[in-house]
Amino acid sequence: MAPIVAVDLGATRTRVAVFAENMTVRARVSFPTPDVEDGVELAERIARQAARLLGGSRPAAVGVGSVGPLDIRRGAVVNPPNVRARYIPLRDVLSEALGAPVYVVNDCVAAVYGEYVAGAGRGRRNVVYLTISSGIGAGAVVDGNLLLGKDGNAHEVGHVVVAYHLPVRCGCGGIGHWEALASGRNMWKLVRVLALSWPGPETELYRAALRGPVGPETVFKLWRGGDEFAAYVVEELARVNAAGLASVVNVYDPEVIIVGGSVALSSPELIERSARLASMYVTNRMPEVVMTRFGDDAVLVGAAWLARRPPENLLRVQGA
Amino acid sequence: MAPIVAVDLGATRTRVAVFAENMTVRARVSFPTPDVEDGVELAERIARQAARLLGGSRPAAVGVGSVGPLDIRRGAVVNPPNVRARYIPLRDVLSEALGAPVYVVNDCVAAVYGEYVAGAGRGRRNVVYLTISSGIGAGAVVDGNLLLGKDGNAHEVGHVVVAYHLPVRCGCGGIGHWEALASGRNMWKLVRVLALSWPGPETELYRAALRGPVGPETVFKLWRGGDEFAAYVVEELARVNAAGLASVVNVYDPEVIIVGGSVALSSPELIERSARLASMYVTNRMPEVVMTRFGDDAVLVGAAWLARRPPENLLRVQGA
Repeated sequence: MAPIVAVDLGATRTRVAVFAENMTVRARVSFPTPDVEDGVELAERIARQAARLLGGSRPAAVGVGSVGPLDIRRGAVVNPPNVRARYIPLRDVLSEALGAPVYVVNDCVAAVYGEYVAGAGRGRRNVVYLTISSGIGAGAVVDGNLLLGKDGNAHEVGHVVVAYHLPVRCGCGGIGHWEALASGRNMWKLVRVLALSWPGPETELYRAALRGPVGPETVFKLWRGGDEFAAYVVEELARVNAAGLASVVNVYDPEVIIVGGSVALSSPELIERSARLASMYVTNRMPEVVMTRFGDDAVLVGAAWLARRPPENLLRVQGA
Repeated sequence: MAPIVAVDLGATRTRVAVFAENMTVRARVSFPTPDVEDGVELAERIARQAARLLGGSRPAAVGVGSVGPLDIRRGAVVNPPNVRARYIPLRDVLSEALGAPVYVVNDCVAAVYGEYVAGAGRGRRNVVYLTISSGIGAGAVVDGNLLLGKDGNAHEVGHVVVAYHLPVRCGCGGIGHWEALASGRNMWKLVRVLALSWPGPETELYRAALRGPVGPETVFKLWRGGDEFAAYVVEELARVNAAGLASVVNVYDPEVIIVGGSVALSSPELIERSARLASMYVTNRMPEVVMTRFGDDAVLVGAAWLARRPPENLLRVQGA
């Protein structure tokens, strides 16, 4: 059986891998996502890396988990907020260059599919994959069906509104989104809002927050070091995450939520605390919340499974 | 072809109808939902009403849209917050009494199926039905699949958290839910919170809000009469609804949201304003927002279609 090509197109890095028949990685490469204006060129560079890894053999299929938003029918990325190219025709370019069918979905949709088929969601029919990294996103399998939606974006849970009156704007332009408060890229905004009304001692994080944007590494490091304001920030982050998690539970009713993404993977205690607090906000029966076993490879593994065993509804919109 | 029985089991009223082959209503009855402790008795009373309407003929199938929460595999209602009976084994009792297969789903799940097959969602593959009445709920069809979830509750959008810090408790116990702020049953809580910080003149609604709980009829009546505080309340309701609508758009990515329910049907201007404001909070491409054409019968029509043409994933969990 011919190999599978899997692509994880992220805002900062792109990973390409070739999977053997037994679904182990035969070759892989990771490189900074090309910061180019021309989306065709970006896709061609990915195709060249894949061709190099394939070393002349022709793949059975190509799976891509990509930054969004997507035009799911075209298999293209349209106006991504965090990549310079405005239109990336992944499907057309990759299928032309590699001579194989190409399946393109949002990165978290790929990840949840991998978890569902071969990871912590195996044997379940209702599975959510949640990533908390520079942004917050999810993919969902409900009743055994991978959710896509009209444009392939039926899982933008980072953009549920958890605080409609908190004057904090998300990267997408929306107000009070989960991602606007608790993602790696935006966390500094919540930290600053909290600093403005903090009545306690002027700790290191407090002073840093008033000076400039502070990232999650600083917050977690000072928290572990006993910074009192950092503890207050982390408790608030847990409440925000709890509200977001509860909304996920209430809208998809999953058996398990599998959590990944750099921010979550670097602070499992925060995720645990968030899951406990979620009971304050939840209506449906609370599911298990576990960390992904695939680490940084969750999207790549999912993309490979999409190519190996494309789900019926994706074939319907992207099938040749 | 044998007739279809459709049941809409609501918190306050229950409707039962018999549909002919061409899906028109042949006979119908509406009665207060029996306020009894014994769920078997409740289901038996519904079965007797159906048998009376059938006049001896045997139905091809029975569809039920019910208050939740559900145990979808058993076709039973479990610990409903707004009905006295603790366990209502609808499927077992109705199939025994009427000698036909019975399909039980949440009321809004029934409604969205009706809209998808025969209403404003016809011809689309991504459809949401949203009800704003005493509570707030929804049903969703994504990629042509009716969403159920592990217990049949994959659509509790009334319980997305729109204000995680607003100390307003929902009927379900959760904090800051959409339903806790903008549903018919809970709206008075938001009205009271707003009154506590209202800096304007002491209007009729303002005085009423401080005296006791005010319902949506009073709010809308005084608003149309020019009450200044009522206008402030309605604008806030529009923001809350906008946040909820945006979360629905962001998690299901529908082509159309069809709105029903008594509170929504009595204030289409509020829904229109809410849909306009939703752009403040939305990430995905905004869908059409329209009112249901089925009025009060949205659940009943949907239940009938479920029985006539049960979707594959429902057959899998409830099929004989």
